[in-house]
Amino acid sequence: MNTSTTKNSTIMKPYVIGIDIGGTNTVFGIVDARGVVIASSSIKTLKHADVNDYIDELYTSVTRLLEAHDAVGKVSGIGIGAPNANYYTGTIEKLVNIPWPTPLPLAQMVSEKFGIPVAITNDANAAAIGEMTYGAARGMKNFIMITLGTGVGSGIVINGQVVYGNDGFAGELGHLIVKRNNGRLCGCGRTGCLEAYCSATGVARTAREFLETRTDPSELRSLDIDSITSKDVYDAAVKGDKLAIEIYEYTGKILGEAFADFTVFSSPEAIIIFGGLAKSGDLLLKPLREAMEKSMFHAFKGKVKVILSELKEADAAVLGASALGWEAKMVPAVTPDSPNTALPTVPNA
Amino acid sequence: MNTSTTKNSTIMKPYVIGIDIGGTNTVFGIVDARGVVIASSSIKTLKHADVNDYIDELYTSVTRLLEAHDAVGKVSGIGIGAPNANYYTGTIEKLVNIPWPTPLPLAQMVSEKFGIPVAITNDANAAAIGEMTYGAARGMKNFIMITLGTGVGSGIVINGQVVYGNDGFAGELGHLIVKRNNGRLCGCGRTGCLEAYCSATGVARTAREFLETRTDPSELRSLDIDSITSKDVYDAAVKGDKLAIEIYEYTGKILGEAFADFTVFSSPEAIIIFGGLAKSGDLLLKPLREAMEKSMFHAFKGKVKVILSELKEADAAVLGASALGWEAKMVPAVTPDSPNTALPTVPNA
Repeated sequence: MNTSTTKNSTIMKPYVIGIDIGGTNTVFGIVDARGVVIASSSIKTLKHADVNDYIDELYTSVTRLLEAHDAVGKVSGIGIGAPNANYYTGTIEKLVNIPWPTPLPLAQMVSEKFGIPVAITNDANAAAIGEMTYGAARGMKNFIMITLGTGVGSGIVINGQVVYGNDGFAGELGHLIVKRNNGRLCGCGRTGCLEAYCSATGVARTAREFLETRTDPSELRSLDIDSITSKDVYDAAVKGDKLAIEIYEYTGKILGEAFADFTVFSSPEAIIIFGGLAKSGDLLLKPLREAMEKSMFHAFKGKVKVILSELKEADAAVLGASALGWEAKMVPAVTPDSPNTALPTVPNA
Repeated sequence: MNTSTTKNSTIMKPYVIGIDIGGTNTVFGIVDARGVVIASSSIKTLKHADVNDYIDELYTSVTRLLEAHDAVGKVSGIGIGAPNANYYTGTIEKLVNIPWPTPLPLAQMVSEKFGIPVAITNDANAAAIGEMTYGAARGMKNFIMITLGTGVGSGIVINGQVVYGNDGFAGELGHLIVKRNNGRLCGCGRTGCLEAYCSATGVARTAREFLETRTDPSELRSLDIDSITSKDVYDAAVKGDKLAIEIYEYTGKILGEAFADFTVFSSPEAIIIFGGLAKSGDLLLKPLREAMEKSMFHAFKGKVKVILSELKEADAAVLGASALGWEAKMVPAVTPDSPNTALPTVPNA
């Protein structure tokens, strides 16, 4: 079999598998070239203390799904989204709340088990690739994906390529400093990061701050202050609660000012937002867009669209990861002489 | 002549021309593939109110230089560095203190006059390309060039490519907001930009601020406060003047914190600094590096080098612009049906 035959037969395979590894669940699905999730399922990430047992169960479950949908032998590649995953090396560098040893050569382990090329990246980069392949960023070469969840993640695309940087970890815009002095303590150990203000957790912190330092009435005062969530703030805001609306204005302003800062870096066509907070609609988007335009460097005024993700939230993680599967290459075994640098080799038959 | 012959004969031509258009002088030079400036000269930018007369004089002067160095017919391309130059469109979008009409299709005009492919970009991007081709960034695929002059300019390289963004104007890091509240007024009309603190002008402003708001002795107090320059501050600092040294510490801290912010974006291998202030050596670099590491997101600590440009200042502008000449393509004429998008055509013989 010569190389070009191998390449063609790989390209002809109609499906990819997307795997999203979260702290609780690992969700996976079979996806076609148009971004339709043919079928999906999940296993518990934490069930196995030994990562090899985890990969065995993943293999069994994925194979069962492939068999049920007549997709065995029709998978072009596997894409995996996972926290702290390094695209260049195929390893997970750090795990929080999962007891497997790190750095973990996950791409190599999964590709050896499945006999299929595997690529991995972090969840926000996977979301950006998903959006570019199947979503709101189709046709765009320069955009930034911002995921507003428990934290703030980002995937940056420039000239049609995800920005990985020199070490594979570029695109940590949730950790841009937005308040240089007396900023909030962030989970990263520093103070004043964007994530400490504009994540779901950040919104809940703002609610507590406002309630503690102000005296104006709010229906949020009827809740236990220590367990207020961004969902509580949203529910109050849509009912017209002024303090809750102000929390969104405060959050949107900080996010919009940060988006203006992102723009002096890469002048994107659009910034796409995704995740729980993105669903707040104009409560967040209106103050965000106003602050962004007001803060914008003159050369970029009126040029940057702020738009919502077009990926369905239930499918997004699997879809995003799966998109990476189209560009996956076989990972050679790591030996002292050949460090794992994801060089392409002939895929298994 | 078939395409591959044309391509080879173009590649074989041993020289490029670099042209740096400044508000006062236009400097140009003949450069070889190793980055040696074979010869250079200049004309006055402002001598001609009509840009066509300017291009005529440029053509005459460059041709004289080529003839004197037996280089006629041996030029592969022309690279031009100019403020507000757009690489994508080949136009200068805005001119300050130069009375030519904008947008000015400069790449097309020069390439039609010379019969040689022309590419243009702004001065900081040209410096980045020069550094990558001939200087401290040789072999690097991810770095950021920061020019510390009257203003603060930047050229960002990711995956070996200059970042132009969606509109051609990406990389305005001098206009990242470093002081969100009560920041200094910047020339761009906003407040708190990096440029308002860390340019030569910014250093002079810091000197005035310190002298006006403090009472401690300094030899800077013997100077006319309104005409203090960054050179005065440097001279005082090297003599051990405490207040002058503190001005550098203040400047270095702000710049180092901004460098940490740049890093969450693109995780560069190095940040290269160039220009007058860069020559201050450890006066600036020590507080800069300390602040950068202290502010750095944990994943990037200890990974980013801060280094000085290796281009000689006298040659740098011409060298940087010339490097762009190697990738210049012929610019087709602009017609309503074929907007100027720098598509390659067969170069003139």
